[in-house]
Amino acid sequence: MTAHPNPMFAKVALIGIGLIGSSLAWAMRRADLAAHIAGYAPHRETLEKAKALGFADSLHDDPAQAVRNADLVVLAAPVGAFAGLAPKIAPQLKPGAILSDVGSVKTAVIRDVGPHVPQGVHFIPAHPIAGTEQSGPEAGFAELFDGRWCILTPPEGADPAAVETLKTFWMRCGSEVDVMDAGHHDLVLAITSHVPHLIAYNIVGTAADLETVTQGEVIKYSAGGFRDFTRIAASDPTMWRDIFLNNREAVLEMLGRFNEDLTALQRAIRWGDGDALFNLFTRTRAIRRSIVDAGQDTAAPNFGRGKKKSQ
Amino acid sequence: MTAHPNPMFAKVALIGIGLIGSSLAWAMRRADLAAHIAGYAPHRETLEKAKALGFADSLHDDPAQAVRNADLVVLAAPVGAFAGLAPKIAPQLKPGAILSDVGSVKTAVIRDVGPHVPQGVHFIPAHPIAGTEQSGPEAGFAELFDGRWCILTPPEGADPAAVETLKTFWMRCGSEVDVMDAGHHDLVLAITSHVPHLIAYNIVGTAADLETVTQGEVIKYSAGGFRDFTRIAASDPTMWRDIFLNNREAVLEMLGRFNEDLTALQRAIRWGDGDALFNLFTRTRAIRRSIVDAGQDTAAPNFGRGKKKSQ
Repeated sequence: MTAHPNPMFAKVALIGIGLIGSSLAWAMRRADLAAHIAGYAPHRETLEKAKALGFADSLHDDPAQAVRNADLVVLAAPVGAFAGLAPKIAPQLKPGAILSDVGSVKTAVIRDVGPHVPQGVHFIPAHPIAGTEQSGPEAGFAELFDGRWCILTPPEGADPAAVETLKTFWMRCGSEVDVMDAGHHDLVLAITSHVPHLIAYNIVGTAADLETVTQGEVIKYSAGGFRDFTRIAASDPTMWRDIFLNNREAVLEMLGRFNEDLTALQRAIRWGDGDALFNLFTRTRAIRRSIVDAGQDTAAPNFGRGKKKSQ
Repeated sequence: MTAHPNPMFAKVALIGIGLIGSSLAWAMRRADLAAHIAGYAPHRETLEKAKALGFADSLHDDPAQAVRNADLVVLAAPVGAFAGLAPKIAPQLKPGAILSDVGSVKTAVIRDVGPHVPQGVHFIPAHPIAGTEQSGPEAGFAELFDGRWCILTPPEGADPAAVETLKTFWMRCGSEVDVMDAGHHDLVLAITSHVPHLIAYNIVGTAADLETVTQGEVIKYSAGGFRDFTRIAASDPTMWRDIFLNNREAVLEMLGRFNEDLTALQRAIRWGDGDALFNLFTRTRAIRRSIVDAGQDTAAPNFGRGKKKSQ
């Protein structure tokens, strides 16, 4: 490992200062990674909240101004906004700067941003797999990335030194870092994140529309499992709309598999095939154990809810 | 309200001492609801664990022995076992005793147990909507039912005084109590609990079977949403097999609605209908807020995971 000067960068620009952007600012402050943190948001209200919270050294309603002279620029807006942002910031990017992002899809980001990146700027997309169902600058906190994976998807021919720098940056933000191909990333995230969100949104919608069961009943008796889905289905609507529109192929592929398996399960219920149900339910338990063992979740039953001590 | 002697019952028999049965024992001890708690389990290993934990005054491998002279008998085994247990305990049930259960389905319980109930015994099915993904006598704790709903589904002609007694019992265990028709209960639980569990089991199974994404990747990158499903999909396989086999009609009906809605969502993704996605995602957020407001979940982001203080 190389020794790193403190701070790591003279200036970092965050293009978007919601949950992820503001958490990144706090994580940078915690590890002293930037002498100057510039934040951009399109709305005055967001900028004012950010000002009060104090995680940025300068705040801008013009993205071109925010990125000026920055050594690292991180796009942290919903991915649907990237195609509009890229041409605005491109002329101001400093030669030698790293341009990265935190988008949940990577092929579409390379498609939308790649063509605008000036010669001499290192474009290295990234995706920290961390978040909560809350959004906005007030939702951020420094520990969000601790122990979570951040996936870098450098395009072919990316500068190895710049990749290494970005890797170090995320590790100092608390993450573990992996590098993979953008297409593979999109497939992995489709099954571990995008389809789970889609079916959580879907069942919450289904429950709200029933005539035989009232919405009041759904809310009252949600402790049986439904409420966990509602947490996921409370995530930022704009961000998630953009994810589904920009990872269409992979989401539809995984959704096809999900539907096929669900049909088989439906058939097992209809025909009373208890063994098929029992075998699946036993197999899935083992996967839970692996996730807890891998440090990606807590072993506390019911996420620690209901135990007096932890409330 | 009537004043209740402490303890409320001279003897309570728990037919099944897993997560729910053992939690009920601890809740009874906490509120001094039974002078004697008898526990039944079919396996020696379970009985030995229960003995070491100390929540029961007597332990039995014969259900008929356990219920002898009990004022309240609670069936707390997987519902698939009720049809076999009912004829065994029936001859030993004391006249005037209350026979209840904690099964997650109610029509099938009335079908399986009802015909065996002797004259003079009050059969009042119940379902506490509380649980964790853990199972076995060591998983139980007194606070499991605190603030959660317990639904009673007394058959037509049930003794109002016995219903009132059971209601008081559950309230003293920490629950809020509702009374409804068994058929409606099964419909409500199908959407708030059974279908959510089914689709959680299903997606965890789908993810495990992919060729394009390895199981190691699914585990590593699960923090994006998938890991919440694995918690639900780690619930007791026998219990859940029995629920699906015994609430078939309602589960298939709700699953039909879920599938219809998911197909519409799939179509919106394929055709790039961002408005349809955004509108659903906005609507579901409001339901989450209602559940938190109703005290059925915590507002801590990400269930409080990731915040340093609560780890």
